[in-house]
Amino acid sequence: MYIILFVKISDVGENTLIEIIQDLISSSESRPDFRRKENLILGIGDDAAVWKTESGLEISTTDTMVQGVHFSFAYSSWYDIGWRAMASNLSDIAAMGGAPLYALINIGLPIDTDVDNVKDLYKGILAVGDKYSVRIVGGDLVKSHIIFITIVIIGASSQNLMLRSEMKSGDVIAVTGSLGSSAAGLRVLSGALTNNSEMHKSIIDTHLRPTPRIIEGQILAENGIRAAMDISDGLVIDLNRLCNSSGVGAIIHTDKIPTDRRLKSDFSGEEILGWALSGGEDYELLFSGPESIVLSVIPMMPAGATIIGEVSGFNVGRVSVLDPENKPIKLNDKGWDHFKL
Amino acid sequence: MYIILFVKISDVGENTLIEIIQDLISSSESRPDFRRKENLILGIGDDAAVWKTESGLEISTTDTMVQGVHFSFAYSSWYDIGWRAMASNLSDIAAMGGAPLYALINIGLPIDTDVDNVKDLYKGILAVGDKYSVRIVGGDLVKSHIIFITIVIIGASSQNLMLRSEMKSGDVIAVTGSLGSSAAGLRVLSGALTNNSEMHKSIIDTHLRPTPRIIEGQILAENGIRAAMDISDGLVIDLNRLCNSSGVGAIIHTDKIPTDRRLKSDFSGEEILGWALSGGEDYELLFSGPESIVLSVIPMMPAGATIIGEVSGFNVGRVSVLDPENKPIKLNDKGWDHFKL
Repeated sequence: MYIILFVKISDVGENTLIEIIQDLISSSESRPDFRRKENLILGIGDDAAVWKTESGLEISTTDTMVQGVHFSFAYSSWYDIGWRAMASNLSDIAAMGGAPLYALINIGLPIDTDVDNVKDLYKGILAVGDKYSVRIVGGDLVKSHIIFITIVIIGASSQNLMLRSEMKSGDVIAVTGSLGSSAAGLRVLSGALTNNSEMHKSIIDTHLRPTPRIIEGQILAENGIRAAMDISDGLVIDLNRLCNSSGVGAIIHTDKIPTDRRLKSDFSGEEILGWALSGGEDYELLFSGPESIVLSVIPMMPAGATIIGEVSGFNVGRVSVLDPENKPIKLNDKGWDHFKL
Repeated sequence: MYIILFVKISDVGENTLIEIIQDLISSSESRPDFRRKENLILGIGDDAAVWKTESGLEISTTDTMVQGVHFSFAYSSWYDIGWRAMASNLSDIAAMGGAPLYALINIGLPIDTDVDNVKDLYKGILAVGDKYSVRIVGGDLVKSHIIFITIVIIGASSQNLMLRSEMKSGDVIAVTGSLGSSAAGLRVLSGALTNNSEMHKSIIDTHLRPTPRIIEGQILAENGIRAAMDISDGLVIDLNRLCNSSGVGAIIHTDKIPTDRRLKSDFSGEEILGWALSGGEDYELLFSGPESIVLSVIPMMPAGATIIGEVSGFNVGRVSVLDPENKPIKLNDKGWDHFKL
């Protein structure tokens, strides 16, 4: 008797699935008849792909948002969804220090969708794209039972690219803006709190209409920062990715993590810290560099930036979170892996 | 009493929806604070977008395929679906005369999908992509209840771009390869015929694993052909699009349309002609140019090519189909508009 075992993607998770696909691609490209194009500088594995052209570096990134997985009409308007889809893609360009140029937009829609809703979705996409003069140059509209949006952005980068693999032992670690507000906003949206203060409106906006740190990313890259990524899945899990790519460890201090001080009026310190560490979707930039460079760039950041820790040559691939008394705090180590059950 | 009417996208159809979106984008980009990027040569409306870099012209295109709309597991394997998704995108690059370079691949998958199926999907993508040494540089894997695949291809083009808007009155019209086999293959797949001849296997392959006419497109562009598109929705509807973009009319002759002569053993002449005119998904190139140029390029085409008609300055936007006695035949004028009911 034979038992056939099928391995589901929920068993292996997103990271393993990506590795499997990378292996397939690598072995395919290593065939003797594959004409190599040596201009590719960075393929799968960073925030964006990078290749060389005669005029400099070109970058591209893409993200898909699916109804019921990445957004819900229970608390997002069509405009919000368009904004967030565009902003999350722009955030990947920001993480490289690049400038967005062109976008391709593919949308799956049920045929009974109101035309006005599609217009609102585009208005949201354009509202954030226009801030950076992104030109929408193409796309595809397809029939689908569920709504999904795929955005591709193609941009340019200076030679001073920021990568995930460039963290060095002894560097300090910093983040732009403040963390945790997006998760707090989602909590307000989900109806946990009923009062409708200005603060609530502001954190809801942080969640629904994040600001990609394009300007900040360019300033960082131009001023000597070489390691960065954007925080989409949460500080700890994303910092862990940075550490793994760079072959280093990291130490961060909870009392240095910047959070919106207005949150304190409605939420406990523990809640706020939890969101700041693993809430995700802040779309702030996480970066590292020699302390002198980081201290010199912080005052240039329109969104501000704060040093939260340091890179260590020990405990490679591990993020240690220390409380104000420098005691390690135990983390809920679940990152956001949407393929795991 | 007020009656509020919601206009659904099924009421207006794909072309009108695209126009509405183009208007939104145009008015957004015409705002005084939008920094113009004059390098864009061609935006929405052709097979691919085109912009200028210091090294030449860059092109990009994207297509999405959705389970139950564009493919079905009833007669396609995961490998087939990957192949067809990649081939249809490459076909758009071919229509411009371009060379594909990089690809981004976004896939929506249920979490209980077998890992081996995802591998097969990628093997199909790579099998056709590798023929043209396309490098997969990034993408996104997302959880979704239905399966969908979005592929973006970024490529390079010579200055001798082929466009939809370049048909000229007096030019002759030609197609590569032969038409209708893909639709015939779909008919065999759907179980209409049970015998399993070599011919059946061959037309099934034409449907499931089309060959993008990359080589042919480059030869056409390099040798002076300026007007082309690929036939994805059917000869008549796609030629109609070419005519509308160029502001001309077209006459084609049914007895000149190339079809696979082996089809005659199992299908009627009327069926074959119907598929050739409006079956779609042949992914052959439809092009036009001065007769002398077309006659000179035909012998260079690996897939062959055939003159099927001529461009007319009259009846702008209209395609006339003439039978062997030069009598116009009445067309089933329904094109493939997947948003119309």
